[in-house]
Amino acid sequence: MSNLQVDENGRLRHFLSIEGLNRQILTDILDTAESFSGITDQHIKKVPLLRGRIIVNLFFESSTRTRTTFELAAKRLSADVLNININASATTKGETLLDTLRNLEAMHCDMFIVRHAESGSAHFIAQHAQPHIRVINAGDGRHSHPTQAMLDMLTIRRHKKDFSKLKVAIVGDILHSRVARSQIQALSILGTSEIRVVAPRTLLPAKVQSLGVHAYTDLKEGIRDADVIIMLRLQQERMQGALLPSSHEYFQLYGLTEEKLSCANKDVIIMHPGPINRGIEMDSQVADGPRSVVLQQVSNGIDVRMAVMSMAMGSINTAETTDPNAPNASKETR
Amino acid sequence: MSNLQVDENGRLRHFLSIEGLNRQILTDILDTAESFSGITDQHIKKVPLLRGRIIVNLFFESSTRTRTTFELAAKRLSADVLNININASATTKGETLLDTLRNLEAMHCDMFIVRHAESGSAHFIAQHAQPHIRVINAGDGRHSHPTQAMLDMLTIRRHKKDFSKLKVAIVGDILHSRVARSQIQALSILGTSEIRVVAPRTLLPAKVQSLGVHAYTDLKEGIRDADVIIMLRLQQERMQGALLPSSHEYFQLYGLTEEKLSCANKDVIIMHPGPINRGIEMDSQVADGPRSVVLQQVSNGIDVRMAVMSMAMGSINTAETTDPNAPNASKETR
Amino acid sequence: MSNLQVDENGRLRHFLSIEGLNRQILTDILDTAESFSGITDQHIKKVPLLRGRIIVNLFFESSTRTRTTFELAAKRLSADVLNININASATTKGETLLDTLRNLEAMHCDMFIVRHAESGSAHFIAQHAQPHIRVINAGDGRHSHPTQAMLDMLTIRRHKKDFSKLKVAIVGDILHSRVARSQIQALSILGTSEIRVVAPRTLLPAKVQSLGVHAYTDLKEGIRDADVIIMLRLQQERMQGALLPSSHEYFQLYGLTEEKLSCANKDVIIMHPGPINRGIEMDSQVADGPRSVVLQQVSNGIDVRMAVMSMAMGSINTAETTDPNAPNASKETR
Repeated sequence: MSNLQVDENGRLRHFLSIEGLNRQILTDILDTAESFSGITDQHIKKVPLLRGRIIVNLFFESSTRTRTTFELAAKRLSADVLNININASATTKGETLLDTLRNLEAMHCDMFIVRHAESGSAHFIAQHAQPHIRVINAGDGRHSHPTQAMLDMLTIRRHKKDFSKLKVAIVGDILHSRVARSQIQALSILGTSEIRVVAPRTLLPAKVQSLGVHAYTDLKEGIRDADVIIMLRLQQERMQGALLPSSHEYFQLYGLTEEKLSCANKDVIIMHPGPINRGIEMDSQVADGPRSVVLQQVSNGIDVRMAVMSMAMGSINTAETTDPNAPNASKETR
Repeated sequence: MSNLQVDENGRLRHFLSIEGLNRQILTDILDTAESFSGITDQHIKKVPLLRGRIIVNLFFESSTRTRTTFELAAKRLSADVLNININASATTKGETLLDTLRNLEAMHCDMFIVRHAESGSAHFIAQHAQPHIRVINAGDGRHSHPTQAMLDMLTIRRHKKDFSKLKVAIVGDILHSRVARSQIQALSILGTSEIRVVAPRTLLPAKVQSLGVHAYTDLKEGIRDADVIIMLRLQQERMQGALLPSSHEYFQLYGLTEEKLSCANKDVIIMHPGPINRGIEMDSQVADGPRSVVLQQVSNGIDVRMAVMSMAMGSINTAETTDPNAPNASKETR
Repeated sequence: MSNLQVDENGRLRHFLSIEGLNRQILTDILDTAESFSGITDQHIKKVPLLRGRIIVNLFFESSTRTRTTFELAAKRLSADVLNININASATTKGETLLDTLRNLEAMHCDMFIVRHAESGSAHFIAQHAQPHIRVINAGDGRHSHPTQAMLDMLTIRRHKKDFSKLKVAIVGDILHSRVARSQIQALSILGTSEIRVVAPRTLLPAKVQSLGVHAYTDLKEGIRDADVIIMLRLQQERMQGALLPSSHEYFQLYGLTEEKLSCANKDVIIMHPGPINRGIEMDSQVADGPRSVVLQQVSNGIDVRMAVMSMAMGSINTAETTDPNAPNASKETR
């Protein structure tokens, strides 16, 4: 799996999951994203890095929000964007997903941004794609959502600088969350001092400690002295099942309020992947308060997506192992 | 409200309603639109005025036609366009509309073209948007549709030159029409000599004279000696209610025919915001006849939308109060 | 009809059907497409031939696949693309289709890519469009799908060079297929030695021999010594009617397998317009085997669409009758 994401020179090829990447690559992504943040202040907010490239938003699961951020990032890199929404029911058979892939390859597309309800779909596509194709995972089942995790890391780094001294608490439906999985991996690779997860017992994975985290079922205990609190979005459909009490009771126990926040470090930042269910994951006072960095996450999402797109396309050269004297070094990743 | 639309130098900032704008600004819009009309004849029909800018078609109510005209205008100004259709039911609470706005701002979007079923939505968004964001109203409830009104004014001016000598009759569902409201305001500000409205009593607002218009319930009387006749589109759903007789009877009383047109000035022009219900608002002989300027309205719509977009973005400097020696004068409206 | 497609200098104006075009124009299209195939290998895969032009995908019948290929071809030519999907039910009356056309013309659009369930729609639009508008047929009812036929011709020519020595067999639902109609016409105009159609009797047109083809109801006989086999896509809805046995039985009789293929020429190429119903028109061994050129067809589709778009817009000058000394020769087709 690591070979799939990184080429022989250690450079990003596909961006499928945080798992299998090393600290250097994650840091390169953050640094590259940082370098793009200045573009926003320019009069013309575009760079020609991906001009003439065709980037396909290949969404088997609809998500206007995520699709929009990738589309904006691609346009800012001067790429042409094609939006394709495919009803998952039309591609139940693996061979048909492959047929879709082969057809888009034949149309000379360069990169696929893949969103799919099934875990492993982005890997599957990357495994079977032609060598010059690049694949970015925009969320696959319960498995991974790596660009979300990296925009969170960028947001944390901009506020806290050094991961090695941080206590980070992730609160909510850890069991079903691809976002939580990717965040835990990224925080761990970047050397976070202490990673905690906070959830009702029914929403914690069976052997959660094996992920290298501390598990809590009590919110105040879980966020005590925390520097960063990441609230997960609660999928409303969980409410109907046996896993959860009412949304009212959930808010009583796990909803973030100013009162409960007093347990955390006074410089704590509050994060949420959005959109917030106000009055369920947190109240509006917290969501719109001075510790909330939710909108900065959105901005950082554009920069991070520009970074992984341009790095995977070989338009930006960040790998430390590259020998500048090697002939055609940069062509190899095109 | 006037402060919201115009900056301290009297320049356009948002374009939300005709109300609150003065004759100079309306004339600037018409003049700017006029200056764009030449682009159509060029080999490459684009100007780089908004290159690198992100313009969002934020449509809470679907309208392919209006969305298309804004998209074309934006592309002709070299902007990047993002189309977002939001089901109104998902944003019933004001706070959620604000969340949508905040997220798009965080994605570094520059301008929102807002269409919404609720009156005042575009104002609401403009009031709460960050200072560098620009908002254009593409129709809000029964309130306002200012770009439609201005393309109508451009069409009238191209044919009739001087508003001060004109008799203009607006025919149809005055009561429910945001188009009629905006037209009456624009005609009035531009100094039209006589503005008339013609409708069944049930489709006239209660105190219609307070708008500065003459009301008629008889079509022939209402269009007598008129220089301009603006037919409104009849929403089919009005037919089901108690407000109107059958469409057949409506056409008998208020549908425009060559015969009825003989009452008007012989140089009269016939306008309609489209799409025409042939055989209801007018018959095809009139719609496709020599006095109809309906398709010129469509063309003028592109020019007018280019004008308000580029003026609001500060890319075109039209305000008479601007001091050219003022430092960074043009940057202030970015 | 031929006058509609070709101007007085013999140059392409609209691309509505293969019928009415001569061998020179078809060859020009193939040659122009060939010249575009190199663009794919460039670092920036765009040419500025249609910069500033507005191309409208006017789809009255939805087809993501076909729409995507035209959108990609247009973007590669640097045009701006507008996607408009119109529910056919909204345009049942001819006058309303005309109103749609008139409105898009008034918005200064340059070219319409038309897909419609009714035969003759693209011709109708071309007949009524203003002189500077260009129309490309992307499939109309059972009538014609000329870009599909030309991408098939390009694929055949790349493999077989000379049409005059070829035996080509088209297999499947000949009766209802616009693709088959266009292919037969193109093969015939290009001088193909022998054109065969293979189908159950219920799916053969009444007087099929009048098209200049040999008809077969037995697959092995029909593909004996064939150099090219074109499999048509079987519309699933045909299965429900009385025209066809079960899909299982269809595959037994008309599905392509390695075993049946042994009757054909050993250099035979297998074509299919896609998407393939695996196990119905052919099995996967054939679809993914060395004789299948299905994905090359997809690639060639981009080049062919670029060719007809740029030729119709007068951006490429291929006509043999053009006098280079004639003043403004190239402007006439703009």
